[in-house]
Amino acid sequence: MSTHGAENVSPGDHPSRLLAAFLAGLRYEDIPSAVIARAEDLYLDWFASALAGKTARQVGIIERYAAQMGPQHGPSTILTSRRGTTPYFAALVNGAASHVVEQDDVHNGSVFHPAAVVFPAALAAAQALGKSGADLLVAAVAGYEAGIRIGEFMGRSHYRVFHTTGTVGTLAAAVAVGKLMDFDAQQFLHAMGSAGTQAAGLWEFLRDAADSKQLHTGKAAADGLLAAYLAKDGFTGAQRILEGAQGMAAGMSSDANPARLTDGLGTRWATAETSFKFHASCRHTHPAADALQLLMQREGLQHDQVASVTTRVHQGAIDVLGPVVDPQTVHQAKFSMGTVLGLIAVHQQAGLAEFEQQALSDPRVAQFRQKVQMRLDAEVDQAYPARWLGRVEVRTTDGRQFEAAVDVPKGDPDNSLSRPELEQKAARLIRFSRAASEPEIGEIIARAWRLHETPDLQQLF
Amino acid sequence: MSTHGAENVSPGDHPSRLLAAFLAGLRYEDIPSAVIARAEDLYLDWFASALAGKTARQVGIIERYAAQMGPQHGPSTILTSRRGTTPYFAALVNGAASHVVEQDDVHNGSVFHPAAVVFPAALAAAQALGKSGADLLVAAVAGYEAGIRIGEFMGRSHYRVFHTTGTVGTLAAAVAVGKLMDFDAQQFLHAMGSAGTQAAGLWEFLRDAADSKQLHTGKAAADGLLAAYLAKDGFTGAQRILEGAQGMAAGMSSDANPARLTDGLGTRWATAETSFKFHASCRHTHPAADALQLLMQREGLQHDQVASVTTRVHQGAIDVLGPVVDPQTVHQAKFSMGTVLGLIAVHQQAGLAEFEQQALSDPRVAQFRQKVQMRLDAEVDQAYPARWLGRVEVRTTDGRQFEAAVDVPKGDPDNSLSRPELEQKAARLIRFSRAASEPEIGEIIARAWRLHETPDLQQLF
Repeated sequence: MSTHGAENVSPGDHPSRLLAAFLAGLRYEDIPSAVIARAEDLYLDWFASALAGKTARQVGIIERYAAQMGPQHGPSTILTSRRGTTPYFAALVNGAASHVVEQDDVHNGSVFHPAAVVFPAALAAAQALGKSGADLLVAAVAGYEAGIRIGEFMGRSHYRVFHTTGTVGTLAAAVAVGKLMDFDAQQFLHAMGSAGTQAAGLWEFLRDAADSKQLHTGKAAADGLLAAYLAKDGFTGAQRILEGAQGMAAGMSSDANPARLTDGLGTRWATAETSFKFHASCRHTHPAADALQLLMQREGLQHDQVASVTTRVHQGAIDVLGPVVDPQTVHQAKFSMGTVLGLIAVHQQAGLAEFEQQALSDPRVAQFRQKVQMRLDAEVDQAYPARWLGRVEVRTTDGRQFEAAVDVPKGDPDNSLSRPELEQKAARLIRFSRAASEPEIGEIIARAWRLHETPDLQQLF
Repeated sequence: MSTHGAENVSPGDHPSRLLAAFLAGLRYEDIPSAVIARAEDLYLDWFASALAGKTARQVGIIERYAAQMGPQHGPSTILTSRRGTTPYFAALVNGAASHVVEQDDVHNGSVFHPAAVVFPAALAAAQALGKSGADLLVAAVAGYEAGIRIGEFMGRSHYRVFHTTGTVGTLAAAVAVGKLMDFDAQQFLHAMGSAGTQAAGLWEFLRDAADSKQLHTGKAAADGLLAAYLAKDGFTGAQRILEGAQGMAAGMSSDANPARLTDGLGTRWATAETSFKFHASCRHTHPAADALQLLMQREGLQHDQVASVTTRVHQGAIDVLGPVVDPQTVHQAKFSMGTVLGLIAVHQQAGLAEFEQQALSDPRVAQFRQKVQMRLDAEVDQAYPARWLGRVEVRTTDGRQFEAAVDVPKGDPDNSLSRPELEQKAARLIRFSRAASEPEIGEIIARAWRLHETPDLQQLF
């Protein structure tokens, strides 16, 4: 710290600059190997999520826009169509595809989905710049570490109106691309300035179930990439775009906390705090689904041996899931506790394919749904939202009673998915949209696990 | 009005929808011929402003980005390089170029620069869609009418942190392009939804004199165009992106007034309320510059006959201009009352070229600067900001005293520029960057005056 300035802080030491200096100094060797391995996990989970978006109408529209406005060839791959184009359009389309089935990762504390914005920008730029898999992993870690801290900095007031993955995502994407360009701290500040002044995304679209979510992730990835490319060529940006008097927090937050921007830089690895989504349903159903799965496996029960299930839940689960008693659409089924537990009981999983094919049409699932009830539980409710506790009680048709408890839902950092589980999830996601053949799925998975030693990223399939 | 709903207002009649319905119904024949003619004036003023940006460093960077990410050919013209590309990149570069010399138009009430965002998007799309000059004029009027009202709606609290030309400009550009696509009201709402959820632009860059202003206008034009192209292909947007509970006003304004969105639709033509900038200096110097010019012409005075000038001003002028006593840069000179009046006295104008070539180097201008003082005037101060009064008193070297008063600065709607004056200004702007030859300047001007009867826009030079 300098001794200049009224508060004994040098003007050069503002939080954004400290963050930028950390990003500039970050090297592969500095990142714990477990965090590098987790980044590979996140990469595979993202890659499969983007491929799962292949058949979505919104993604098709943005693909056609890219074909109309962009070049027909280029170094960067649009994953859903496997077409080459320039990095801007690959980031745009892949960003739009990443979040559409809502199975991509999430960081709980920042309410931010890093993969959907960081990897589309980073992969597109890495391909164009001829970078290695290790370079991509360092860039992704930089994007995650910055984006998660900026999301935490912007606070809950921001999230009430703004879609953090769209707004903060623009900065996270810019940081990832800037790392691939070997930015120094000053270049990072310029790129963050140009990214932050483009940051946008409002929740209003939810009211009309409009298509904006895909626009938010696609634009965050593409606009962040734009910011980095401009900074590389000398375009300057605001030095305090986050905490300045007319910056992002001034305009879009009432509870911003600058200390979060530099929280544990180099010791706390926010990348590894990111959760994987396991079941393809509303997150409020996950603790009970995990607990039921555990119980049925442990006791060797089949669905037709179950007479009733009671799941003890927090109030939020009752508020959100309670109204859904007779789901009519696949989307509604994802908010039906009975249907989710029915899929687990009958099909052993509640993934995208099970929802599409079985949630509404399998009479055994509908029958199981009738046996499920939720009950408010004081312990579970008190623990929420810091901990999401899963509690189920099962009575069998022959009169036995069982209980099971899961304290950390599957996919959270303390109960993360194993590589075999991640492989199964990835395969399910890719099969869902038929975006790759079975041999290709195997190859995609194998490539992810050797990403850290891959010399170049030209060939993705 | 419907009789349904608690407040006797049909959900279909919200202000955004009424605005969208007006835009959908707007036809060339409905627009008064004086407004069409004014739109041609604004078009020429914009075209020349964009060409004046040709040599700017920031524009060069964005041009190179467009060359790197976009196709090398296409139907839409980048004005500064005369290269053809796709509409997205033409809108991006031309938007960036439009505002860089700060001579483009301004709407006082909304503090919004419509030309810099509306025309880049509209011309790029019109060229790609094979539209006529009349189509372009209707589209521009739609963009101005919507953008100005949305700027007024967002209020002064928005402008304190957000650069309205960037944020609101995204919607204005989307509306202009949507009009070229013959959108119905529902399509306009979708396009506005996608534009509003991308709306961005923070003033923080001012603190560091960073390059963001060019990014704001370029991105507003390009992102607005994107929103319209997506809506054309069926991409949906929030229906109440302006006034909804998680919309633009909810996130970025504390004094939004929905009544402004529909103010005088079809009877009040906000397009014709837009001011032209005449002198290339800070707006606070304009009333005095106009008054001095009037006085010297009226009395037939030369600069060396003037012994002293006192200009009676509002407090804001003293606050902003007072500190600049010995300007060292061209930018500072634009905030020096003495320099501005010196250029008027010695060179009869204070345009871009005079600032670049004479403001700092001509000893006669420096000498005149010493003769100028500002004095706070109660009448002038009280009238501000509704009216910007110009008052000067001149004492000559042979002891005569003169006064002159101008009540509306040149360029404001009630004292607009004549077509000959607009032609002179356009020629000065284009000569400044040498973006066109003298015969081309004549042709650019002639084309503007026959824009309303031009069948297609393929040939701009």
